[in-house]
Formats: sequence, structure tokens, C-alpha cells
Amino acid sequence: MPYYIGDVIKESKKLVIRTPEDFKKTGIDVKIKTRVDGIDPKKGSLSLSDGTLLPYDVLVMATGAEAIRLDITGGDLEGVYVLRNLTDALKMKAYLNEKGCKKAVLIGAGYIGMEMCEALRNLGIEVKVMDILPRPAIRWDSEFTKMIVEELAKTQVEFRPETKPQAIEKGKDYRLKLQTSGGELDADLVLMGVGTKRSAVLAESMGLALGESGAIKVDFRQKTSREGVYAVGDCCEVFHKVAGRWVYFPLGDVANKQGRVAGQNIGGYPAEFPGIVGAQAFKVFNLEVAATGLTEEEAAKYGFQPVSAMIWGLPVGRPMAKGEKLGVKLVGDKTTGKLLGGQCIGEKGAVQRVSSLSVALWAGLSVDEVGYLDLPYAPPFGGAWDAIHIAAQSLKGKM
Amino acid sequence: MPYYIGDVIKESKKLVIRTPEDFKKTGIDVKIKTRVDGIDPKKGSLSLSDGTLLPYDVLVMATGAEAIRLDITGGDLEGVYVLRNLTDALKMKAYLNEKGCKKAVLIGAGYIGMEMCEALRNLGIEVKVMDILPRPAIRWDSEFTKMIVEELAKTQVEFRPETKPQAIEKGKDYRLKLQTSGGELDADLVLMGVGTKRSAVLAESMGLALGESGAIKVDFRQKTSREGVYAVGDCCEVFHKVAGRWVYFPLGDVANKQGRVAGQNIGGYPAEFPGIVGAQAFKVFNLEVAATGLTEEEAAKYGFQPVSAMIWGLPVGRPMAKGEKLGVKLVGDKTTGKLLGGQCIGEKGAVQRVSSLSVALWAGLSVDEVGYLDLPYAPPFGGAWDAIHIAAQSLKGKM
Repeated sequence: MPYYIGDVIKESKKLVIRTPEDFKKTGIDVKIKTRVDGIDPKKGSLSLSDGTLLPYDVLVMATGAEAIRLDITGGDLEGVYVLRNLTDALKMKAYLNEKGCKKAVLIGAGYIGMEMCEALRNLGIEVKVMDILPRPAIRWDSEFTKMIVEELAKTQVEFRPETKPQAIEKGKDYRLKLQTSGGELDADLVLMGVGTKRSAVLAESMGLALGESGAIKVDFRQKTSREGVYAVGDCCEVFHKVAGRWVYFPLGDVANKQGRVAGQNIGGYPAEFPGIVGAQAFKVFNLEVAATGLTEEEAAKYGFQPVSAMIWGLPVGRPMAKGEKLGVKLVGDKTTGKLLGGQCIGEKGAVQRVSSLSVALWAGLSVDEVGYLDLPYAPPFGGAWDAIHIAAQSLKGKM
Repeated sequence: MPYYIGDVIKESKKLVIRTPEDFKKTGIDVKIKTRVDGIDPKKGSLSLSDGTLLPYDVLVMATGAEAIRLDITGGDLEGVYVLRNLTDALKMKAYLNEKGCKKAVLIGAGYIGMEMCEALRNLGIEVKVMDILPRPAIRWDSEFTKMIVEELAKTQVEFRPETKPQAIEKGKDYRLKLQTSGGELDADLVLMGVGTKRSAVLAESMGLALGESGAIKVDFRQKTSREGVYAVGDCCEVFHKVAGRWVYFPLGDVANKQGRVAGQNIGGYPAEFPGIVGAQAFKVFNLEVAATGLTEEEAAKYGFQPVSAMIWGLPVGRPMAKGEKLGVKLVGDKTTGKLLGGQCIGEKGAVQRVSSLSVALWAGLSVDEVGYLDLPYAPPFGGAWDAIHIAAQSLKGKM
């Protein structure tokens, strides 16, 4: 879908834009169900799948990424889904409504797997989640992922570690049968949440430079290597402030910010996107799971000297605690004393801590400073020494 | 209560210390119910109310502050309380248990008033809160305090603005009768939550320098103007990183941190307390109320050029919203572009935002940067553009 973005940026604020017709009111012509088959950057034109040529002065690449559909026998059977965009969601919803579903198997225990567990379980569907890795949400510490597996078990979701999907065939009692390295699983619905891939074919065909990650290389203004061509979202790289390098980090809030920055630059209001620190979060039933910055492995890879500390604290003052737990793990750099990353888990307060830690990473604070940060204290929200302080002081002791 | 603090800091970790006897096990002699009548800094000794002299090498002033008891007729009647320390709380609790209470009047709608509203209301007591000021929690914007008054009303707590207490006498149907500028109020319990005062008599008598605020002057190691004498907590000043000056800011978490820093320095592990940014929070029924940094008035007083913006956002992604509101107000400095302060209110997420803003203030971030901070995004916890981003971008537009 090629969009024209121009001086309508301001105009469009006055309108609710939901359909191609809404866009037309702003002077923007939206072509849906139209593929871009080729780009001629010298002439400044796109060849569209409807056979026409579309000229441009400024081009924004926002081609995103696609959900990976595993190449296994039966991977295209009815009832087997991926979940990436609105169309995917509508298809799955229609299937659930029309055909019903008693059992679902989720392949992949990342974000999509974890979030869909809850969504499907809330519909009363029996849910199993499998992953080829030994733990769900592998980015998090094994102590924390243990808590996730326990939370899944509490809600009758079975997690199957180190299980490889092999084939899907039609079933008898249930509509599908999934063959795995760990045996057969019945299901009415199979969802593949195993990551994304991006196609750089168009970008490469027009000679845009790609970064080390293979995604489109951009600068802080979202400009690509070609004058007049911008890239935003899951098709391009982003600057990681903690790693100090350009990385591929396809998350929705990052894409949103990049879009705004590109739009401002195109509209004549120069802006730079400062980058990210790797903040991320998900909710699985009653658990908040969040992380930011680098893991120890990433930090080592990027040349830091990582040291870590983990503590179990409280999201409320001790006298108000009713058995809540708040896990905080911090990673620091032995050489510079700086904070490099953090992750938290708990029924409440985990996202709050990771949010604050993200700002600390953004500003390049030292672990020592994190141990003394002035945070809003009141017993319903934490201790006089917040879990963040305790974790930072524990980490300080190891550095 | 003079404490000896020395090389037992590490030892004490192995023990739970609750009573003077527990302390004795660590070699610390705790004298309770003993007043310090005088200090001779040249000799290094304290004259105690039991007639003895206590020598010291190192002295820590942790004399705190006292709750103000209004000097009105009947201010000392049974059933009239202040709330500062454990003894105050135990007295009030005993009175509630032994005598019962149907109606309570809270004089002062600050932290103590707001928090006690909820505590008393939860006991089924009819509660009225009065203040000589036109609004409760006066530090917060009037839009926000309106939300507090509504929350109080929802829980049948009446707020009486601009009401001055005049006298308390014994009552008939209820045990007390409070005369105010706005008429008579019946009560079984009257609680005065009208702030604190501190006595600098001891500090002055031994020649300690006081700051502009009248509290004991300290440096970043918590040292006073006299060698070997430290001060911590509500009797001393603290460095405000946003204001760039030493201020009086008597909060429990600050006192805790100062105590740790003094202890480390005395124990031979040099440490500095970097200061505060003015983070604070309270909970009133289902509302989180939090603030950090400077208000516009404070900012103007300290020579900044304050500009502010306020927005009503959401603590969850729009598709998940069920009518929640999250108010965010930010203050920036027109001259430098820096963030100067923030305040938030809402059923949830307010403390989270103020916590992140506090780290931004700590690091001296610009309003522009706050508008692009990388925060952990997932729909159960906020929008792709967080309320903080939206507020910062709105403020940026005004600067």
C-alpha cells in the first residue's frame, strides 16, 4: 500500500481516517489491494500490480515484516494460523465463531504464544504451548520463566519444552492432529507464533543500503541511503542506545515513533529519533513480564563486561504485602559501572520498574545512581527502599 | 534516643533488631525513654535526662520532626490526635478499639488526611475532611484535585474547603464538637494532619550550621558543619537535583537513604547521597496520586521559565480501555528545554509514570527526549504512545 505523505499531515488531524474514502477527503489517494512490483528510483516511480506507474517525490518504505509460517506438512490446513495483522486476527476469529474450538496448540512460547494463551483460555479453550527451546519467553532469566510456567499451569495451560513440530494432519475427535518430537497432540486450532521474517527484495532492487541485520539502513531522521526515500517500522533498523549500534528491533511502539519522525522531516519540521533501549513487556494471565536493555549474553557479545544480580522484592510496602513477589534482575558493566539492562516479573509493579529502568538506561546512569534514585514512595506502591534500589545495591556489591 | 553506630553495621545484618535487648546482642547500647538535654561538642559528650554523661566519637543527629498540634481550645481533649510515630498510631488504635467511633473529622487534607480518610472509612466510620486551603493535596493541579474530591465523595467522605478549626469541646450525641469557621461538626475523633515542625534547639546549642530552610545543613556525605557530627532524616536538608539547591524535604524514603549514606561513611565505606528530585505519592481509595520535580510556582521561584501542559490519557491501550483516566501534567523550562516536573493521577498507572519521570528529572532530560523515551509497551499497560509521550509532545509544542 503506497501512501502519499505530504503537507496533509496537519490537515489530517481534523479528520478520523479509517477507510480509503476518509483519506481521499484529505487529498490522499490510498490504493489498497495493490502490490508494488518494482521501484525505479531514478525516475521516481513505482510499478503497481494494476499495471499503472505511480510517480513520487518522496517515498516511505513501511513494508514491515511477515509472520513465519513453518514449512511443515499440513501447515496450510484450515485451522492453522499465524497472527501478525488485522486480517490474520479476523480470520482466526471467524474460524472460532463458525467452527468452534475445544483444544488449541500454540507453537512458540514468545509474545504471540503467551498473549494468545490468555485470549484462548478466556474463551474456555484447552490450551497447550510448545517451543523448541527449553523455556518460554527465553529472553528472561530461568528463575523468572519458571514463574511463567507456574502461572500457565495455574490456569491449566500446559507448557511443552524442547518440542519440535513435525507435521499437521486432519484429526478425528478433534479437527487437527499435530505430530511433534514429543508425541501427537489433538487440536481444533494450531497457531504458529515463531517469529517474523522481512523481505528486502524491493529495497535491494532499488539499491537501498541494508544494515548488518539485513534490514534497511536508516539515519536518525529515518532517511535511507537514497535521497527522498525514508524507511520506518519493521523493515528498517533502529539505533540501540545501550548497545551503541544499529539493530533490528521490530516492535509496534518503535514503528509508531519512527513514522512520526519521518512524517515530520517530510513535512518540513526536522526531527531525529534518538533510538531505543530495548524496552518490552507482555502480560500472561496475572503476571507482568518486562525487560529492557541488554541481557548478559547480548552485553558480552557487544564487548561489555556484564555482571548481574537478581533479587525477589515486593511491589508494596512490607506491612501491606499479601504474598506478592516482584523479581528484579539487573545487568551492569564492570568496566564503566553503568547499568546495561534489567528485567522484572510479578503480579504487579514489574512494568513500572522496567519503565523506570528504561529511563535510567536512556540516560546512561550508573548502577550506583540507580541504587539511590528518588522514586515516588508510599506503602501501597513499594518499600522505602524500592526493589530497584535493592537490586542495584546488590549488583553494586558484585562490581 | 542516642544510638552508637559503628562497625556493627555488617554484624547487625545477621540479627533481627526490634528491641533494646536485640541491640545489646550486637554490642549497641540503646537508651530509650532518655532525653538528650545538652551536647558538649568540644568534650564530645551528651548530658542525658537520667543525669549521666555519654561520651561520643561520632554523633548522628536523627532528631526528626514533630507533628504540629494546633493551639486551639480543646486541642488536648481525649479523642484529639496527631499522627507522626508509632506511639501516636497505637494511642489512636486503642481509643478506636476501646471507645468506638462513629464520626471522625480530619483537620488537614494533605498526606495524613488523605491516607487516614481511607483507613477510617474502611472501619465504617463517617469521615469529614476540612482544610483552610480551597483544595486537598494542594501541590497538585486543580483539575487533579477535583478528581480527588470526587473520589472522596464516591466513598461518602465530605471535603470542606477553606474551613478553619476554632475550638474543640466535649459533645453530647458524639464525644466531641468541633467549632469551625464553617459551623459546628460532631465527632468522636478529631485528627490533626496539618504538617510538621522541627526543633533545631539541640543543633543550634552545639553550634551546627543551619541551612536557609532552618534545618541542619549537611554535605553529600551527611556531615554537618562540625567534624564527627552527622545529620540524617527530617532534621536536616537534602540536595534537590532539579532545583539545584539544598531544601527541606522530610519524607521517609529520603531519610532511609541518608541514614545508609551516613552509616557507610562512619563505617569507613565512603558514600555520597546524590540528592532527590522531589518524588512523592499517595493513595486515596482507588486513586493513585503522584508528583515529582517542581511545580510551576516553585520553578518560577527558583528562576526557571516554567511552561506546562496537561493531558488526559489512558493507563492501557485504547482497545482495552474501560473508562479509566490518567491525568499527566508536565512542567518544562523554556530557557533550557529541560523537564522540571510532573504530576499524575488515575485509578492506575499514575505512580508508574511519575516513577519514570523522576528518573528523567534525575538525569536532566529535555522535554523533547521525554517525548521519545523507549518505555515497555504492551496494550494492558498503555498505548504505543504512552501518556508521558503525549504530554511531553504537547508541552514541546508550547515551548
